[in-house]
Amino acid sequence: MKVIVDGFGGDNAPIAVLKGCELAVREYGVTVLLTGDTEKLTACAQENGVSLAGFEFANATQVISMEDEPTDVIKAKSDCSMAVGLKLLKEGKGDAFVSAGSTGALVVGSSTLVGRIKGIKRAALAPMLPTSKGMYMLMDSGANLDCRPEMLVQFGIMGSVYMGKIAGISNPRVGVVNVGTEETKGTELELEANELFKLAPVNCIGNVEARELPLGGCEVAVTDGFTGNVILKLTEGLAKGFSANIKKMLLKNAGTKLAALLLKSGLQEFKKSMDYTEYGGAPLMGINKPVIKAHGSSDAKAFKNAIRQAKAFHEQNVIGEIEAGLKTLSSKMAERESAQVGAAE
Amino acid sequence: MKVIVDGFGGDNAPIAVLKGCELAVREYGVTVLLTGDTEKLTACAQENGVSLAGFEFANATQVISMEDEPTDVIKAKSDCSMAVGLKLLKEGKGDAFVSAGSTGALVVGSSTLVGRIKGIKRAALAPMLPTSKGMYMLMDSGANLDCRPEMLVQFGIMGSVYMGKIAGISNPRVGVVNVGTEETKGTELELEANELFKLAPVNCIGNVEARELPLGGCEVAVTDGFTGNVILKLTEGLAKGFSANIKKMLLKNAGTKLAALLLKSGLQEFKKSMDYTEYGGAPLMGINKPVIKAHGSSDAKAFKNAIRQAKAFHEQNVIGEIEAGLKTLSSKMAERESAQVGAAE
Repeated sequence: MKVIVDGFGGDNAPIAVLKGCELAVREYGVTVLLTGDTEKLTACAQENGVSLAGFEFANATQVISMEDEPTDVIKAKSDCSMAVGLKLLKEGKGDAFVSAGSTGALVVGSSTLVGRIKGIKRAALAPMLPTSKGMYMLMDSGANLDCRPEMLVQFGIMGSVYMGKIAGISNPRVGVVNVGTEETKGTELELEANELFKLAPVNCIGNVEARELPLGGCEVAVTDGFTGNVILKLTEGLAKGFSANIKKMLLKNAGTKLAALLLKSGLQEFKKSMDYTEYGGAPLMGINKPVIKAHGSSDAKAFKNAIRQAKAFHEQNVIGEIEAGLKTLSSKMAERESAQVGAAE
Repeated sequence: MKVIVDGFGGDNAPIAVLKGCELAVREYGVTVLLTGDTEKLTACAQENGVSLAGFEFANATQVISMEDEPTDVIKAKSDCSMAVGLKLLKEGKGDAFVSAGSTGALVVGSSTLVGRIKGIKRAALAPMLPTSKGMYMLMDSGANLDCRPEMLVQFGIMGSVYMGKIAGISNPRVGVVNVGTEETKGTELELEANELFKLAPVNCIGNVEARELPLGGCEVAVTDGFTGNVILKLTEGLAKGFSANIKKMLLKNAGTKLAALLLKSGLQEFKKSMDYTEYGGAPLMGINKPVIKAHGSSDAKAFKNAIRQAKAFHEQNVIGEIEAGLKTLSSKMAERESAQVGAAE
């Protein structure tokens, strides 16, 4: 299989991208199709001794940055490495796409240049966040500030398929983020989403409070993009704050420094458990081909992991299963509607 | 001054309440007016050797529990210790009220039985959350799921006065919780609130991302009650998860157990820094008399702290300053409106 990779996405591009691709070719036997200025990419590979076996190239003359408007990916910078990659994906020149570039541009570009799964209202970036028992998928994490109930249910179906197929969790629990667990809690959005979830082919456990998210309360948390963005960023900020506090505690005196030595391996594990970039990239759910957003600060290993994720995303037929789930939902919704019409007549 | 205290609010009532009041009388020279079954209260004090010097009592025959509906405080349980306390506060029989009972009941009861500050749209519970540099006040934390822009600005004025007067922070920074710092970010609520904040007599720094909250990005964070509740509960859940991970790390083997001994005092401090109940109770802002919600699990020391907070709330004329702030806001809003009408004519 062939994974298209944005050669100029992320803080450490292109060298980290090249090295990550080299590792992925070797370990997973994939072919990578790298987009960007081919001359620069091959020169960088040569300088750094990166073997280009298993590499293909597609030239792109521009690079989209974090400062550009997301819509520039289809306008002023339509020949950037990200846009070129997405067009190749659309044309079937590769099976999946990985980029560590601008999240906004990737959401806009994927929706416009590749297209959404039939019936899907909005694409959603779905990062994995750590819990004391493993991880959970958060959807939406910021692309769609205002959501309708049906969008939340679609997020639940997509997340459930992904976590089942890729994270290997059987019957993943889908929770609606809410201010209480009782059925009557929340705004119209949560109330109606819970009603609609009764028709969806997923294991929806109803409302879940934010307190339970880091404690493993569900495997897929669905919410509007505003709340999801707050959850994602607060998790990041608290992890950073806690780490700083621990560091301060360990550097206090000779005794605490000895303790730090004794805890060395444990502390590394602890730090890793709080770092959501460890879980690879975030899938962009709802696009009709596999797209993985690698973290902006990705190193070679993170790119390798994102390519592995893209490979599984393609091979496990995640999109086909999502389509089947959406079909079940819409036929049940139609059934319910006709029953309501029948009752009213 | 006299603080009215709900004798039967909280998990550890009445003994922790009695002991906390005893400490407060001794340390702060206040009089406490304790509500609830007077016979039970005095018997409990006698059994536990609590001195009742500086105590007054007001009998109440009922207790409102977490299982009761919040509105029961004015209906089925209108003679509960909380309702009796609120009525005494309204009548001026005391200067402030402290309760560790049901949050919902306290919000409903205070708004109905005591009343809001003139012009205030909604009362809001305002917990203090820890940051790496101190603490910040979060408003709203769950009482008002749907908020209008003016409510957020009122929260900002109230929080700014409180943090300035009680927490002693000069010119507290007020931030609007949002998905980005740029002026164009967010929903209508955040966009309009930011516009309106330009007329408010507070140091509003504009949008603040959730990532910055635990890192000390502002001293007063304003948001709708849904988002605020998610922030509050996620902070709790992550602190709990981190603590469990640290504990696991320290109990791993003989070496890590030795490290735990070496870190003993640091760990206690660390735990304390994550525990928002350490900062005393949460003021209920917007009520026209001082009301403090002590944490449900309050012990004697926490009750003593909540009474100290109530005392300062009264003595520092927080409510008078809020009224002045609201007046400035509404006159500036009127000015702006007449300027707009003038420009249109």
